[in-house]
Amino acid sequence: MKYLFAWVAPALVVIAHANPLNLMPLPAQYTLGTGSLSIKQTFRVVITSYTEPRLVAAGERANSILSRQTGIPKTLSESGPILTISCAHAAEAVQKFGEDESYRLTVDERGARLDAKNPLGVLRGLETLLQLIEAGPQGFSAPAITINDHPRFPWRGLHIDVARHWMPVEVIERNLDGMAAVKLNVLHWHLTDDEGFRIESKLFPKLQGMGSDGQFYTQEQVREIVAYARDRGIRVVPEFDIPGHATSWLVGYPEFAAAPGPYQIERRFGVFDPTFDPTKETVYQFLDKFIGEMTALFPDEFFHIGGDEVTGKQWRQNPDIQSFMRQQGFQDNAALQAYFNRRVQAMVAAHGKRMQGWDEILNPNLPKDTLIQSWRGTKALAESARLGYQGILSAGYYLDLIQPASKHYLIDPLGNEADSLSGDEKKRVLGGEACMWSEYVGPETVDSRIWPRTAAIAERFWSPADVRDVNSMYARLEVVSRSLDWRGLTHRSDYSKMLNRLADGGRVEPLQVLADIVEPVKNYKRGRGAGIVRPTQQTPLNRLVDAARCESLQAMEFARLVDDGDRKRIREWLMRWRNNDALLQPVLAKSFLLTEVIPLSQALRQVAETGLEALDMIESNKSPTAGWLARQQAVLDEAKKPRAEVQLMIVAPVEKLIGGLEHPQPEVPKRVTRAK
Amino acid sequence: MKYLFAWVAPALVVIAHANPLNLMPLPAQYTLGTGSLSIKQTFRVVITSYTEPRLVAAGERANSILSRQTGIPKTLSESGPILTISCAHAAEAVQKFGEDESYRLTVDERGARLDAKNPLGVLRGLETLLQLIEAGPQGFSAPAITINDHPRFPWRGLHIDVARHWMPVEVIERNLDGMAAVKLNVLHWHLTDDEGFRIESKLFPKLQGMGSDGQFYTQEQVREIVAYARDRGIRVVPEFDIPGHATSWLVGYPEFAAAPGPYQIERRFGVFDPTFDPTKETVYQFLDKFIGEMTALFPDEFFHIGGDEVTGKQWRQNPDIQSFMRQQGFQDNAALQAYFNRRVQAMVAAHGKRMQGWDEILNPNLPKDTLIQSWRGTKALAESARLGYQGILSAGYYLDLIQPASKHYLIDPLGNEADSLSGDEKKRVLGGEACMWSEYVGPETVDSRIWPRTAAIAERFWSPADVRDVNSMYARLEVVSRSLDWRGLTHRSDYSKMLNRLADGGRVEPLQVLADIVEPVKNYKRGRGAGIVRPTQQTPLNRLVDAARCESLQAMEFARLVDDGDRKRIREWLMRWRNNDALLQPVLAKSFLLTEVIPLSQALRQVAETGLEALDMIESNKSPTAGWLARQQAVLDEAKKPRAEVQLMIVAPVEKLIGGLEHPQPEVPKRVTRAK
Repeated sequence: MKYLFAWVAPALVVIAHANPLNLMPLPAQYTLGTGSLSIKQTFRVVITSYTEPRLVAAGERANSILSRQTGIPKTLSESGPILTISCAHAAEAVQKFGEDESYRLTVDERGARLDAKNPLGVLRGLETLLQLIEAGPQGFSAPAITINDHPRFPWRGLHIDVARHWMPVEVIERNLDGMAAVKLNVLHWHLTDDEGFRIESKLFPKLQGMGSDGQFYTQEQVREIVAYARDRGIRVVPEFDIPGHATSWLVGYPEFAAAPGPYQIERRFGVFDPTFDPTKETVYQFLDKFIGEMTALFPDEFFHIGGDEVTGKQWRQNPDIQSFMRQQGFQDNAALQAYFNRRVQAMVAAHGKRMQGWDEILNPNLPKDTLIQSWRGTKALAESARLGYQGILSAGYYLDLIQPASKHYLIDPLGNEADSLSGDEKKRVLGGEACMWSEYVGPETVDSRIWPRTAAIAERFWSPADVRDVNSMYARLEVVSRSLDWRGLTHRSDYSKMLNRLADGGRVEPLQVLADIVEPVKNYKRGRGAGIVRPTQQTPLNRLVDAARCESLQAMEFARLVDDGDRKRIREWLMRWRNNDALLQPVLAKSFLLTEVIPLSQALRQVAETGLEALDMIESNKSPTAGWLARQQAVLDEAKKPRAEVQLMIVAPVEKLIGGLEHPQPEVPKRVTRAK
Repeated sequence: MKYLFAWVAPALVVIAHANPLNLMPLPAQYTLGTGSLSIKQTFRVVITSYTEPRLVAAGERANSILSRQTGIPKTLSESGPILTISCAHAAEAVQKFGEDESYRLTVDERGARLDAKNPLGVLRGLETLLQLIEAGPQGFSAPAITINDHPRFPWRGLHIDVARHWMPVEVIERNLDGMAAVKLNVLHWHLTDDEGFRIESKLFPKLQGMGSDGQFYTQEQVREIVAYARDRGIRVVPEFDIPGHATSWLVGYPEFAAAPGPYQIERRFGVFDPTFDPTKETVYQFLDKFIGEMTALFPDEFFHIGGDEVTGKQWRQNPDIQSFMRQQGFQDNAALQAYFNRRVQAMVAAHGKRMQGWDEILNPNLPKDTLIQSWRGTKALAESARLGYQGILSAGYYLDLIQPASKHYLIDPLGNEADSLSGDEKKRVLGGEACMWSEYVGPETVDSRIWPRTAAIAERFWSPADVRDVNSMYARLEVVSRSLDWRGLTHRSDYSKMLNRLADGGRVEPLQVLADIVEPVKNYKRGRGAGIVRPTQQTPLNRLVDAARCESLQAMEFARLVDDGDRKRIREWLMRWRNNDALLQPVLAKSFLLTEVIPLSQALRQVAETGLEALDMIESNKSPTAGWLARQQAVLDEAKKPRAEVQLMIVAPVEKLIGGLEHPQPEVPKRVTRAK
């Protein structure tokens, strides 16, 4: 066995945990029984009590998913296990926030039974049932169990920005499938921004006609997606961001802007000045008609008007607006925007909807049924709740910032400032939304930024507040991530495709060795490093940073090996990384897409060499000299700098390895001899 | 550098070849120029002369593919390279076999120009242009080149059986995309067989209603697929297999059978007895109406009536049929089937179509416009041609037999017996079809059996006869295989998904080490080994044999290392395989799907140990003893036996390694001592 590890790539080992259930989100309450239900065929679904086409479709869909996950053919035969669904009554015709989603699921050796008050609970329970089924030594089976489950928060959303980068219908639909799998229930669809107006208006066709490059959803497609979401128990809340983030509107209708124009679709990313003119009555006439058209298209109770990041520059520079503000006694732009919001809110209400907006819209003059979405922090959310507004949290759930799942996971809508709220105030915190802003994702890469991390966020929104074990979360996250593969999400399969594109016929293995331990730069660092040309909407997303995963599981595993002091496996990894550069450089020389990776690969080699020297010292019980330590620290500091817009995630564990060395021997200062 | 290979998985190196063009099929004629066309944006497509919506759509589709392959966003801007398409005139309203598909493509530093007589040539040339674009140190580019190209054969088909296993619309459509990429032009759609009737008949709804388990194409879907194919320059020839292979028809209409019934959808695979009764006029009345309905749905000139593998048992056992045969003077069942075929042919002709059938239908009494599809060999094809019939070859192109691409590649429709035909007779050989029979493939696995091997067959049908360099073919096949990934084919991405399902949360790496060097059993061995329960239509296709690739590229690479005597890399591989068993066994113990793999993994270890011993002897210049040779041969013979319905593909090269040892030393016989 002595060569055992020398020849097989050291591999990620997912830690098995005490929790035997690979469920995500974990249910509110469950009791394991004895025995299991053997699954050799797809279910015969029997619906007792209330039924509707959505339930029949859900049963068939569950069987289709089961069939894909297991490879068992979808059968129509009379054998196979029985799933009895008992649904007490219909759900609301238009799904409302706060509707009952609870269910009771029992599985024993004879079959499965799912009880729910309404179809939403059935949908949630079916997903749980699918997650219970696993292969074992005896075949596919689900453990005998009784689950009583209900969500902690009624608003559990995913926000997708389709303006910065266009996302075709199939991208939205497969992500709705992913949302359903983890019991999310709101798609917040960010349809307009400076970089694109992504929905057809029949009343104002220049909106999409001049503001979208032809990349927009027709109204028929919108209806299709709304129906697709409803089938999965997901509400769709559209967002039309006004009065700022509005360039794409003004390309076709510059007369509504606070400055003369003309306007062009914004290609850059950031916060821009084009803004509606809140002083013109024609603007409100236009918005009223537009809101009327859109509220007819989207059945949901809520209508999101954005309201974030108004620079106010156009307002300050427009004498008519300044004069209007003086007449009205508005002290600042915030007061002017509040006036605009009240006008818009009245129109939204007249069209039968509740207005929602980002936390900038918060103003005591707004009606109390306005919903506040906090992106700036839990403080704003708590403040809203104290003022009597319902709110949801997005701060801490920004997927585009490339943070680890664990970080999102531990942020709680009722945590931090919200913790000090009264009971009634806490009830105003409805839940939260993960936000996928799309400056740096396109149809090819968006899944890999949303998934699997959003499953961890979904557990935060659904499961009891004390479900907070990060190790358990990661173990289950890997299982749910695999299962999302079978829903058509591309967050796993596109990795190898993209690495193959980069290698362009060269050896892809050494490229993957490197890619496996890097992560894209975090927060707002992308596109801003020294010497980087600021990207635009038209910049290809086909580089290593785009292929790289948001969380390097292999780097996490390596960090664990360092913590555990598993020197044998630490050495294997370090040797592999040290040797990788020589294999990778010929590949990097082939394609211009990889030129930027050349120094990154070299840095990895240097870090690995440093780690190996440290390991040698540890194993031979030698202490490092201060000079050695200083030299190695310089190597590590250099390696911490982002290259090719990614970070090497193994630098910190190597640093820790060095930190574990014995106290350094003071170096004997060299005798200084005078120059001759 | 001494650890270089010890730490990185030895990897497949695709051999670079003299042929600098990664085109498949290779064009009839080309001349490389100097310089290249830089591709930083998608093409601005300018269509001069004749145009039609199909051409506009093809240009947009080419840009979409380019965008996916490169990651360059599809732009609508006014910059970017220009592709000028000049098309002389329209194609036939319904694509006819034999229509001109030639094109001339010129690329230089300023742009690309594509000239063709009709839209079919444009479609072919666009695919060539896409294949020319590759990443290099300076960016994406296409080399300066002039290509004059045309197909060798006018009939270049892929036959897909959707009866044994149902293939949903998206499977057909993505395979049409793959066909278009390699210039195939006929989808032969095997719509009915004993195991399923897969198309909606409005006149006879019990056909699909009772014969399909609800898995059939609606007429609307058929029209969609025919239009999808036409957009890509592909004809669709439907096959309705009669009078045998007809069980699924007879489930709903037993009155047309030659024996009383009742009938059920056949779940097993093989050749079965249920057959139409060729003596009943009601059968012809039924068929005439049915053929009328179907010929209205499929615009193509050809209509395939199957006609293969009639057992004749029902005919022999039916006294009325026997009596009819005596009256008509038919000596045997073949004569009765010929009578049936003539009747059917007359109906097909009356509905304006040319009849096509498998080679069993060949009979001098059939009109000369009948097309013969030879599945039993080139001899039958040559015979047809001599008799004056046009024909196509499928013998040698059966994808379900899991033969290497090289074998299919070297089979020529004009090879073997056809070589002796006269010039006019040779002209009757129209081309060929790759055949994907679906006993052992489902929607998940079918792509991996069709691709990439069908690309090699497509080259045989398109490129000049002297394009026969197998090494060049394999090098280019790998490139085209990668590019098919971007068309949505799943032949690569499903491999890892399926291995992940098998590992079910365990380590997938050692499973892949094994899977990478096995191939499914060949020819008709699947489902027939000792102790194997004969599979049916409802048997899951989720085992190692289903995940395994048809051709192990790593085993090919290992064989090459043995041929080259690269002892260092041979040792790396052998050690990896020897050590793999210990890593893999815990994974195999987890899931019932892998129980059958336990002895296979052990066999791999043993073969690797044998190889390592041989390598040690080679390196130490020792000669093996006869006893050692005999023992090792026993190990290898045992390892050659299929396990889990796959074969270890590295046994033969290890055998070769041993064969390269010096002549064995005669063993000194042990002295026999008498028992005390």
